[in-house]
Amino acid sequence: MVRVVIIGSGNVAKHLFNVFSANEAIKMVQMVSRNKNALKNFGARINSTTNFSKIKEADIYILAVSDDAIKSVSNQLTEVKGLVVHTSGSTALEALSNHKRRGVFYPLQTFSPNQVIDFKNIPICLEAQENPDLKLLQSLAKKISDTIYNISSEQRKALHLAAIFVNNFTNHLYHIGNTICEENNLPFGILNPLIKETSIKIEKLSPYEAQTGPARRNDVKTINTHLEQLKDFEEKEIYAVLSRSIQNTYGKKL
Amino acid sequence: MVRVVIIGSGNVAKHLFNVFSANEAIKMVQMVSRNKNALKNFGARINSTTNFSKIKEADIYILAVSDDAIKSVSNQLTEVKGLVVHTSGSTALEALSNHKRRGVFYPLQTFSPNQVIDFKNIPICLEAQENPDLKLLQSLAKKISDTIYNISSEQRKALHLAAIFVNNFTNHLYHIGNTICEENNLPFGILNPLIKETSIKIEKLSPYEAQTGPARRNDVKTINTHLEQLKDFEEKEIYAVLSRSIQNTYGKKL
Repeated sequence: MVRVVIIGSGNVAKHLFNVFSANEAIKMVQMVSRNKNALKNFGARINSTTNFSKIKEADIYILAVSDDAIKSVSNQLTEVKGLVVHTSGSTALEALSNHKRRGVFYPLQTFSPNQVIDFKNIPICLEAQENPDLKLLQSLAKKISDTIYNISSEQRKALHLAAIFVNNFTNHLYHIGNTICEENNLPFGILNPLIKETSIKIEKLSPYEAQTGPARRNDVKTINTHLEQLKDFEEKEIYAVLSRSIQNTYGKKL
Repeated sequence: MVRVVIIGSGNVAKHLFNVFSANEAIKMVQMVSRNKNALKNFGARINSTTNFSKIKEADIYILAVSDDAIKSVSNQLTEVKGLVVHTSGSTALEALSNHKRRGVFYPLQTFSPNQVIDFKNIPICLEAQENPDLKLLQSLAKKISDTIYNISSEQRKALHLAAIFVNNFTNHLYHIGNTICEENNLPFGILNPLIKETSIKIEKLSPYEAQTGPARRNDVKTINTHLEQLKDFEEKEIYAVLSRSIQNTYGKKL
């Protein structure tokens, strides 16, 4: 039985609380947050506190707080004896340097408020200062997920950046697709099968092999027609920059 | 029984040939291509020719050729009496203006050579000069797909552009994610669950609502850290342009 205290009350804290609470091999000991109202969302069954001096004993303390808050919250945890970890993709292990036993528990997924998430398929990226603590984190992670990775701070930083490209930026391209559909009285849903296939295709082909379209073919005529067609300055700029990058990607190696 | 002749031997021609051949309510009459070698891929059971004067009688002639070739191939089809359609997202119906009976049969999907495609979920976008021909196209499309749309040339042009954003450009972002992973000895597969979730999320939330990340939060500090982290000029440019567009999208409306 691994005993866990979560500090934080945002999306990641909520999703971790839910998956830990539902697992018989994990004991959710306490929720800690400076936000009293947010703590109410976790229900009456779980002990909760806004007072850092009342934090209970546990094996692992998970700081699921915003990146900016990690260091200051870590510094307030002066009394705890267990392993202290954060959940951030872009924050180095050293942000927790006031704790000898420190680590990272980074679930690589996008968490929205009311979206149910199946943790089984979420890669959990782990790091710890000491080897026994890495083992402790692995034992916790294995209880909720089938894919565990040992990832250094440097690798995690790169991974988080890659995630921004494939998640945030991709989602913004979906948003532009949606805008173009709306402007032309087309339902956005018409693009759904294409969006899904694009995301599934790369399980069998590398994205390099999977590429198609005018920029891939260096079809300058079609690219120019599209640039004329786009009236919004930012859409035009995004089209131009991405097309040029695709042309260069394949131009280089052809 | 709808009788079909396909002119072309590329990816779209192959996928259409496969799905039509497998359907009992469709009669694949002939494959036509100037490329004799490519015709061999369709097997001995189907009549095929490189000679445009030997084209057989059919209800629908499908020009599955490159956009640039549509007009000239159409002009060579002087003898045919059936409905002539092209399969292009970006080509107007008028490219077939030498045929009184003209239309468009545009499957909105990305077709790769050895990728099996389930047509049932592919939106087929239809257009025809005359109403009876639209009905004929609908009857053909319904035999292979559950989602049929009547789409004007103007709408189709916009749809094709939207498709480039959500397919080609998204795939290029996957490629950049892959590159960053490779440079840091990370398996690209670690990003797969995130990529999938990003594509599935927008079935319930609009992309506008689904957005997360530093640009969404206008977290300028993290954005600048990432820009410093990126060494490749194009990756840096793409990061900057897309982040600015996300910031403006939410800045405008917050």
